[in-house]
Amino acid sequence: MMAAGAAAHSEHGRHIALAMQKIGKGLLPAYRIRDEDKLYRIAELLDIDTLGKEMLEVAYDVATKTLEDYQNQDHHKGCHWISATLPDKRVDLLSRLGALPHNIDATVSQIMARTHIGCDAEPKNVFLGGIRGALADFNGMSLATELSDVMFGTPSPVVTEANIGVIDKDAVNIAVNGHNPLLSEIICDIARDMNDLAKEAGAEKGINIVGICCTGNEVMMRHGVPLATNYLSQEMAILTGALDAMVVDVQCIMPSLPQVGNCFHTEVITTMDENKMQGARHISFHEQNAVETAREVIQCAINAFTRRDPNKINIPNVKQTAVVGFSSEAVITALSNLDAVDPLKPLVDNIVNGNIQGVALFAGCNSTQTVQDESYQIIAKTLAANNVLLLATGCGAGAFAKHGLMNQQATEQYAGDSLKAVLTQIGDAAGLNGPLPLVLHMGSCVDNSRAVTLATALANRLGVDLCDLPVVASAPEAMSEKAIAIASWGVAIGLPTHLGTIPQVTGSDVVTELMQEGAKDLFGGYFIVETDPKIAGNKLVEVIKAKRQGLGI
Amino acid sequence: MMAAGAAAHSEHGRHIALAMQKIGKGLLPAYRIRDEDKLYRIAELLDIDTLGKEMLEVAYDVATKTLEDYQNQDHHKGCHWISATLPDKRVDLLSRLGALPHNIDATVSQIMARTHIGCDAEPKNVFLGGIRGALADFNGMSLATELSDVMFGTPSPVVTEANIGVIDKDAVNIAVNGHNPLLSEIICDIARDMNDLAKEAGAEKGINIVGICCTGNEVMMRHGVPLATNYLSQEMAILTGALDAMVVDVQCIMPSLPQVGNCFHTEVITTMDENKMQGARHISFHEQNAVETAREVIQCAINAFTRRDPNKINIPNVKQTAVVGFSSEAVITALSNLDAVDPLKPLVDNIVNGNIQGVALFAGCNSTQTVQDESYQIIAKTLAANNVLLLATGCGAGAFAKHGLMNQQATEQYAGDSLKAVLTQIGDAAGLNGPLPLVLHMGSCVDNSRAVTLATALANRLGVDLCDLPVVASAPEAMSEKAIAIASWGVAIGLPTHLGTIPQVTGSDVVTELMQEGAKDLFGGYFIVETDPKIAGNKLVEVIKAKRQGLGI
Repeated sequence: MMAAGAAAHSEHGRHIALAMQKIGKGLLPAYRIRDEDKLYRIAELLDIDTLGKEMLEVAYDVATKTLEDYQNQDHHKGCHWISATLPDKRVDLLSRLGALPHNIDATVSQIMARTHIGCDAEPKNVFLGGIRGALADFNGMSLATELSDVMFGTPSPVVTEANIGVIDKDAVNIAVNGHNPLLSEIICDIARDMNDLAKEAGAEKGINIVGICCTGNEVMMRHGVPLATNYLSQEMAILTGALDAMVVDVQCIMPSLPQVGNCFHTEVITTMDENKMQGARHISFHEQNAVETAREVIQCAINAFTRRDPNKINIPNVKQTAVVGFSSEAVITALSNLDAVDPLKPLVDNIVNGNIQGVALFAGCNSTQTVQDESYQIIAKTLAANNVLLLATGCGAGAFAKHGLMNQQATEQYAGDSLKAVLTQIGDAAGLNGPLPLVLHMGSCVDNSRAVTLATALANRLGVDLCDLPVVASAPEAMSEKAIAIASWGVAIGLPTHLGTIPQVTGSDVVTELMQEGAKDLFGGYFIVETDPKIAGNKLVEVIKAKRQGLGI
Repeated sequence: MMAAGAAAHSEHGRHIALAMQKIGKGLLPAYRIRDEDKLYRIAELLDIDTLGKEMLEVAYDVATKTLEDYQNQDHHKGCHWISATLPDKRVDLLSRLGALPHNIDATVSQIMARTHIGCDAEPKNVFLGGIRGALADFNGMSLATELSDVMFGTPSPVVTEANIGVIDKDAVNIAVNGHNPLLSEIICDIARDMNDLAKEAGAEKGINIVGICCTGNEVMMRHGVPLATNYLSQEMAILTGALDAMVVDVQCIMPSLPQVGNCFHTEVITTMDENKMQGARHISFHEQNAVETAREVIQCAINAFTRRDPNKINIPNVKQTAVVGFSSEAVITALSNLDAVDPLKPLVDNIVNGNIQGVALFAGCNSTQTVQDESYQIIAKTLAANNVLLLATGCGAGAFAKHGLMNQQATEQYAGDSLKAVLTQIGDAAGLNGPLPLVLHMGSCVDNSRAVTLATALANRLGVDLCDLPVVASAPEAMSEKAIAIASWGVAIGLPTHLGTIPQVTGSDVVTELMQEGAKDLFGGYFIVETDPKIAGNKLVEVIKAKRQGLGI
């Protein structure tokens, strides 16, 4: 599962890096570099000389050096992105443990080789091999996230809506579902051009793009596109009878969608050649023809709109305001309104003085083993009441957005007094006329590295390692291989990491012990497996208290 | 399974290639280039300019170009080794089908990504993705085999013995088990130097190296080291009470070995850092210290010898003469005694005139679902009686060697008249005073590419594609992921491929049909699943007849 997770995130990352290489060569007219500042910051981070270079040349060099992380055959040389993004102390520790990948693909292959029949049969060795894969996952997602920001813009706060009620019966509704923003970004662009066509077809409000799962998170963060739903209820978008097309790219797409679509007029469209579905229409996407593909997809949706059965339309009137787009840069920007010279100071001060007790990152999936989204809310409310700052990504972010925990009202209602005061101070200074939302939306599941960027800044600022911080992670509905990879690197970088579902390791006492206790000795981080969200919330509060005690604050 | 198989073979291949790169730089004194002719032949095959280069420089260049097959990020460029070793017609077909890998590791990652939850859900697409992995497996094994020959010598016929009786109670018995020859080669070298130490410790016959599984095949082919057993009975070597050490490297090593070893005096020694076992002694092997590691391992065995319990010694007196070492080069050399100018001509002529009806390659594992080695023998005898030339690798080769089907007597006893005449003609001309053995031992399971080299030469000579030849493959006891990968590329390169165990696909009618019928339309090759070895043998005879008919011979 660690290998599969690493492979999934890293294929996504490679796709982005290869596209950026082509942008650098001027080969992809549909795309451009939207955040030049970030490009240059990354170039510096990766030790790339930019002097006298054209901007596109820098983009090419950044992409090329990034791709070295998929190519390096020298086992003694680590991956560029890990070295560039984690605290030195942590990189040293992981290096001593032999847990650092030297090449993402080679690490995935190595795991597949060492788990072949009759190979690695020493549980701790296998576990450490898996951790190397999980750290390859971190490397792959870091580069995917950061290069996406360069190409599509770094998210900043935007107000939008979430839940199934964002589907509009008077518009041509197109859901973008999956994870990779390469096509959905262009669909958002082209939809504006094609709005009149939709109106001519009878949709008085034109085209309404809505998001599902993490492609949804990507376009919500960057364009304020409303989120229809997250993983587990993706079929429900079709059941409204008013979804005209669901366009999917990669990962966490239910293979049942075409069957459900067939009960309605909905076009289910696959776009990636390596991710097809039986019964779906396939429109093969390649970046070179991005605009044409986007047009074809939208035209399909408009055509489908004309085939709607009005008797089948039933859109539940549920939606919530969500303020989203809190990249690490956006958080720093918000804080800089309080201290322009040293933006981290207000955050550090408030953590030290206890107004903010700690930070929790919610990540991961939906699982059929729980009531969808419920555990997220229960744990978050417990932590918020205990003045813990909350961050979220992926389907966790979707859950909070849908259930109204990503707006100012939620902060008023659920945050502990000192947390509320800090969030209000920052929000007011940022011109929001009120607090920041209770949970900060940091992006899709590939964006979990954003939280690490923030945590690394904190750790470096305090001169400690990540495992010393009062920072925890929680994946109440972990389900996919990617979630296992994420949770595992969470542990490896030092975070106490809660799982609300039971991983498939309980056949081995040794591994079960290793994940929960042994890992603590190795990494400082460890797994906390707790299916009851009330107990899990309280456990995380206790962990944060203990971490504070360790720091003497 | 296709991804895991590809990863396993290709990790092995990478290990060899990286070592050869270091040899080229003069960094590994324990190793050298033993087959310079082959090195230069490979350089030519890979389009490497050798003019004015030192031999070691050529070795470095060959290794470096080989490693590009793990690094290339251009999806439109295929792997070097596939292009260099398969017939052009076949490469073109595979390219049209989108089945060619561009990079071994990336292909493994891609499979792991597209089989992640919610990705590829179109059976034919998933199947073709798997085939791409299987072809990456072929690429990885081709380079592993060929570079091993360069470093350790290309096998040529050697007479030895096989089965458990090769363990000698009067010697320090060391079994080498696994697949990768990098350490076992040095152990064979160093054992000669340390023979007197063993005698001093009381072993009157000194050191007796025996082989198990494919490390066994490697040293049997190159040094005539006797083979104790193949996969399924590896524990039995310990049960003789006279095995002093079992040294393992990678793949198909039973994790139970240390437990079994603990019931005796036997040292079970793991040597690869990514392949440990609970309860085993680990002596970390790195090529830089190969000699020291080999010494340490042998000393361990000598020490253990002194702790033997004589009451526990029970070595069954079963062993058979085996003539092994039929690399494709060795086959061509044998044939050149009949026609020095055109060595393939006698083989082609005898196939065309029907003296040899066809060729069958036996490959693959042992499986607990069958009686060990039995199906191999039943099918082989059926084919031999029908004048089919037999080749074998891996645990198939082990089965035939152990059961006396790799010697001249077997040819006399089981070969059909016309086959017997041809084998006798070739054997006599080669100075063997009698026929070639009934089954030609082509090497370990990573050496299956040797048979393809021969088949490609035949196809090119006849101006046809591989799927047109009367050539079949059979894996009567396929079990491991590697076997699934091998069988799958067998199908992809056009071979009707028998499986004597049922692959785990029967949950899907679509995939089951695709493997047996659909594949035929795509590749010419296809799977023949038949658990009854008698029926399987007859089916293969029928397939060969049909292929002959297709060729009009």
